[in-house]
Amino acid sequence: MKKYLAEFIGTCVLTLFGCGSAVAVNTLLAQSNVLVPLGFSTLLIAFAFGLSIVAMAYSIGNISGCHINPAVSLGMLVSGRMNVKDFTGYVISQFLGGILGAILLFIILGSNASLGTNGFGEASAMGISVGVAFLVEVILTFVFVLAILGVTSKAENGRIAGLVIGLSLTLIHIFGIPFTGTSVNPARSFGPAIVSGLTSVAFAQVWLFILAPLVGGALAAVCYNFLSKED
Amino acid sequence: MKKYLAEFIGTCVLTLFGCGSAVAVNTLLAQSNVLVPLGFSTLLIAFAFGLSIVAMAYSIGNISGCHINPAVSLGMLVSGRMNVKDFTGYVISQFLGGILGAILLFIILGSNASLGTNGFGEASAMGISVGVAFLVEVILTFVFVLAILGVTSKAENGRIAGLVIGLSLTLIHIFGIPFTGTSVNPARSFGPAIVSGLTSVAFAQVWLFILAPLVGGALAAVCYNFLSKED
Amino acid sequence: MKKYLAEFIGTCVLTLFGCGSAVAVNTLLAQSNVLVPLGFSTLLIAFAFGLSIVAMAYSIGNISGCHINPAVSLGMLVSGRMNVKDFTGYVISQFLGGILGAILLFIILGSNASLGTNGFGEASAMGISVGVAFLVEVILTFVFVLAILGVTSKAENGRIAGLVIGLSLTLIHIFGIPFTGTSVNPARSFGPAIVSGLTSVAFAQVWLFILAPLVGGALAAVCYNFLSKED
Amino acid sequence: MKKYLAEFIGTCVLTLFGCGSAVAVNTLLAQSNVLVPLGFSTLLIAFAFGLSIVAMAYSIGNISGCHINPAVSLGMLVSGRMNVKDFTGYVISQFLGGILGAILLFIILGSNASLGTNGFGEASAMGISVGVAFLVEVILTFVFVLAILGVTSKAENGRIAGLVIGLSLTLIHIFGIPFTGTSVNPARSFGPAIVSGLTSVAFAQVWLFILAPLVGGALAAVCYNFLSKED
Repeated sequence: MKKYLAEFIGTCVLTLFGCGSAVAVNTLLAQSNVLVPLGFSTLLIAFAFGLSIVAMAYSIGNISGCHINPAVSLGMLVSGRMNVKDFTGYVISQFLGGILGAILLFIILGSNASLGTNGFGEASAMGISVGVAFLVEVILTFVFVLAILGVTSKAENGRIAGLVIGLSLTLIHIFGIPFTGTSVNPARSFGPAIVSGLTSVAFAQVWLFILAPLVGGALAAVCYNFLSKED
Repeated sequence: MKKYLAEFIGTCVLTLFGCGSAVAVNTLLAQSNVLVPLGFSTLLIAFAFGLSIVAMAYSIGNISGCHINPAVSLGMLVSGRMNVKDFTGYVISQFLGGILGAILLFIILGSNASLGTNGFGEASAMGISVGVAFLVEVILTFVFVLAILGVTSKAENGRIAGLVIGLSLTLIHIFGIPFTGTSVNPARSFGPAIVSGLTSVAFAQVWLFILAPLVGGALAAVCYNFLSKED
Repeated sequence: MKKYLAEFIGTCVLTLFGCGSAVAVNTLLAQSNVLVPLGFSTLLIAFAFGLSIVAMAYSIGNISGCHINPAVSLGMLVSGRMNVKDFTGYVISQFLGGILGAILLFIILGSNASLGTNGFGEASAMGISVGVAFLVEVILTFVFVLAILGVTSKAENGRIAGLVIGLSLTLIHIFGIPFTGTSVNPARSFGPAIVSGLTSVAFAQVWLFILAPLVGGALAAVCYNFLSKED
Repeated sequence: MKKYLAEFIGTCVLTLFGCGSAVAVNTLLAQSNVLVPLGFSTLLIAFAFGLSIVAMAYSIGNISGCHINPAVSLGMLVSGRMNVKDFTGYVISQFLGGILGAILLFIILGSNASLGTNGFGEASAMGISVGVAFLVEVILTFVFVLAILGVTSKAENGRIAGLVIGLSLTLIHIFGIPFTGTSVNPARSFGPAIVSGLTSVAFAQVWLFILAPLVGGALAAVCYNFLSKED
């Protein structure tokens, strides 16, 4: 059971620190009387998400492997590195962790008006359509899970894997934030969406940020299994 | 005694370089006739603190382990990795180092008007209350000390631990700077507060930045001990 | 054949994420009514390219070594670490990957007006001449390939090589973006140039970003072979 | 002799990429009609210098150890890790490399009006006095060389040392750029100063950026020898 608790804590930290950094910096920028261009805070937010992985990979990673993302756990399941029972326990823990992270952020901010949710259409900085958003999230998650499967498949990479995965998530956010805010993680999207309220735009759109990352993660597992198989 | 000297030097460097980077960049931004949004310099300051840990971990870390933070030493004490005598010596050295760092910064700037102090209420960019500030500092320190205890508990991580801890401190600052300026370190807060003067707001509020990090560090130790214990 | 597929995927990801991050951030900055200075987004774009290497080096790098750049493959060929048959297969795969990356970016953006192309003269932020652009690209690629040959020549660097190469590419972009947009990679330049159209400025100038990186990569191989030879 | 050539190339790259990145980004920022605050480009420049070390440490570092800085070589001499003959050869190579880097930058820019020189008084963004500038450069170099001596004194750090030293130089620049532009390296300062002209302010002030780093480097060696000596 301790590995489920570890996944719960890790996903809570990722959601709170990643989404919280985004909301805080954007709140401060909006208070100035200079109109700050969208895109200003992208690098900072990208490092917040990526370094959350670094911090968690070397602490709770000792206990659970630090997936803290249902799309990553699905990639592990499809690759045959995880069984269905653990997959189920991990995913439930991850969703609960994402919800607690969003609740803590709500308490700290005193408001649920802005919680770092993902979106498309009007809710996307680049204004992309639902179809393009789906394509973007599939590609983002494909690259992220491919990097994870690759770096963790060689035992000698053990020490450095957390760093590589964190920096890969930073990359995924640098590219994806202008389009969808970058989910690649159903649990990180669901928590802020549900705490935003059942009538919020974020909650109405959250299905895409559950489905597309799972598709991307599964595709990455199939692709990596093919590439790494001995001929 | 050399390990106490090492902690003294390390905490001095962390305080001087971390707080000094914050004050210098904000001074330059304030001199321009563009109103610069708050939050502009967050990423730079976060890297200043985090990379101070990297630089010190691989130099004085050889001698003392590079805690340079009473909350980290408390986490080590609670985890049973440090005795009370060393804890006392470390903490005294850390406070003295923080004070010297703040004095050097005072000399370089020629003023103690702004020394990178922490705060809540009017002294917080986000204007958070004392209760929320306490919660934020407990969470920040919990995550930071959890990462330290995790990465240092596996001998094979030895070479990379300093890098992971430094990047974790960068994360903690990205999220925390808009709220409290991020302490997570009583010695880093006390030095600038006392050099700011006994009647300064920083000195009046410094109790929180001593108490909350210690609570967060102790909680992290209890949590990590539970998680990592063999069933 | 799998290593060719790996090079194809890797070059596609590098082109899509590197060029895509550049276009997205610059689009958002241009939408604001503050005139954003050129140079604003340089660090973000530099990390996008560099971290693309990190993500790919530890995944497809297991299969192909992750050159994802004809100038790097040429350096390997000149150093005697690769044969002509593999060189040919790698380079073809890399060009095809760069083209697919640019096509995906076209689909996501719904336009080929701006695809992160390289340029000189009017197409250079610093307005440098064709001769200076050639010199800059030779120097940039020389340093990049020198770093790659060095870090991969010691087996003990295996685990960290991808990180070092990625951060070296970040450096190359920090310096080079204001001058040429930084190519150092014929495949990364050719894809966006051809998708921009056969009458585009980018396509008219793309010869330089094929030729100069190859010269720089070959020079680096000659230099490194000389330096590392036992006397 | 090859190690001298390696030092020559490495110092040339550091000077060209570090100073060149600073000049390029500041040129672009100055072209906009928004008055850009001083301090805007500090983080980018800090990464340019730091990542130059990373790129060189893993390439020419195989041949010469990658000092590329007379203050570092002095620290090695004082620590007894280098003899006087090599010290002399290294320092001469480093100065020649710094000069070539500045000449290449002159050629690329078509002007020597701004070459990333260091300074105090009017030439310092913070306007610090000569005395404070001397103190700042001593402290900066002390911390930088302390980190180098520490990380290279344990054989097990071999693989990661270049990364740690590069990130330490990034730290040194984040803090020091607003004060002196950060030298910590006589060769990196002398090249741009002499290419700026014998009547330039930079050349008139360059003595400080030769002397203070040497004092800081020697102090670090004395301090580290004391700390690391077995009782």
